[in-house]
Amino acid sequence: MLRIASPSNQKVKRVRALLKHRKARREYRQMVLESPRLIDEALRFSAQHPDCRPVFAFYGNPTPRAQETLARLRAAEVPCYEVAPAILRMCTEAETPQGLIAVAPIPELPWPERLTFLVLLDRVQEPGNIGAVLRSAAAAGVEGVVISPGSADPWHPKAVRAGAGAHFVLPVRQASWMDISRLLEGTAIWLAMPTGIYSYFEVDWRKPVTLILGGEAAGPGPEAQSMPHRTVRIPMARGMESLNVAVAGALLLYEVARQRGLVK
Amino acid sequence: MLRIASPSNQKVKRVRALLKHRKARREYRQMVLESPRLIDEALRFSAQHPDCRPVFAFYGNPTPRAQETLARLRAAEVPCYEVAPAILRMCTEAETPQGLIAVAPIPELPWPERLTFLVLLDRVQEPGNIGAVLRSAAAAGVEGVVISPGSADPWHPKAVRAGAGAHFVLPVRQASWMDISRLLEGTAIWLAMPTGIYSYFEVDWRKPVTLILGGEAAGPGPEAQSMPHRTVRIPMARGMESLNVAVAGALLLYEVARQRGLVK
Repeated sequence: MLRIASPSNQKVKRVRALLKHRKARREYRQMVLESPRLIDEALRFSAQHPDCRPVFAFYGNPTPRAQETLARLRAAEVPCYEVAPAILRMCTEAETPQGLIAVAPIPELPWPERLTFLVLLDRVQEPGNIGAVLRSAAAAGVEGVVISPGSADPWHPKAVRAGAGAHFVLPVRQASWMDISRLLEGTAIWLAMPTGIYSYFEVDWRKPVTLILGGEAAGPGPEAQSMPHRTVRIPMARGMESLNVAVAGALLLYEVARQRGLVK
Repeated sequence: MLRIASPSNQKVKRVRALLKHRKARREYRQMVLESPRLIDEALRFSAQHPDCRPVFAFYGNPTPRAQETLARLRAAEVPCYEVAPAILRMCTEAETPQGLIAVAPIPELPWPERLTFLVLLDRVQEPGNIGAVLRSAAAAGVEGVVISPGSADPWHPKAVRAGAGAHFVLPVRQASWMDISRLLEGTAIWLAMPTGIYSYFEVDWRKPVTLILGGEAAGPGPEAQSMPHRTVRIPMARGMESLNVAVAGALLLYEVARQRGLVK
């Protein structure tokens, strides 16, 4: 196959649009996978969900690790195009690019029927933080994650990278506030706040629960606050005032998992 | 006072050397503080430790928040120099610069005499991860953090930023392996590994302990493995294979804190 060397190639344009524009990701229902490990996860996922098979891949001087994944892509009959190094650089934002990227459909995992453990991310602005929380949420056995209006895009390339595969195992929904109240129905709502009344390990987490994690600066917004809720905090020593959003989220989610025996 | 507009000014050169070179930070025993919040922490700290007062500050179009800190610096008689915007940009790597930076001595907090809760960071390569662990460690009530040879510099600007003030409340030591075995004396050593034998919440953490957190890719190195130790893991759901270093560290440290009642 001919090597792609033009930035005006249609597929190159598609990748760049998917990297840069939330609107493009929404319109095409596609995302960019920028590491062999993520592409492997996509291939594993599409073995069960054939309509989620990667659409195409670009490679150029792939690392040995990327070559393994490239062979798997070809075995799965995903079209793989060699591209010029300058073009490939335009098609990835990864800090340590490995010479291989792929475009794949955004998975839509079914929302769980019996809800016992949800997370709502409210106005989290940094896509890397969203991805990091998704990664911890998947590991802690969370059943679904809802993303509020005013949050960053969970399918942003930084969020997908930080998710480390969570996007393929955890149902994620971007929703309006009207839909959110429906999605959370039947769960007790807890807002995580520095001024929360209960310390997170004093709470009995065994009943169905939604944990709301707010944005980096302002915390949960007025819509979240207007739902009937209780507040929880992570106590801190040595006068420290706050924790990183991803760290705070992981502590809360793993405390629920520990009490319920979700992970062993 | 005259505005500094030359990149060859001695103080500008000092800031740039401290940002870029570990050797410069070691030689001068100084670091760069790139946010008003960190500078406030340094001022609070130096109220108790006058030899740790910031050495000088640069400002240029400071934000309202930075102006507050600038007033505090002046009240503390720290020399503050106005610098040209292009020069200030050369003197910070912060993602959202606020028009104010300061140079301050690296604090040397006394090593605790009675050791019950230490952390050893072994070959952690990413300064941002070191800073994130320091932040969680301070919040969890850790008594001291040892940094192994082959790790990133805990006084790297990214580490200082991610530490969010932890560097002023937590004793941190970079040490050789010979010194490390002395520093940890009297504590039981636990290595955190994905293949660890004990799940972290099954362990009784109430006796004196050192938790060793290994690097992003390879985990703890041979020197750490050669000390008498046990291994601990964080169990994961949904086939997830790993957690971010900072997240894994926080989960382990807060489980110790929870069991000991260090935070309430």
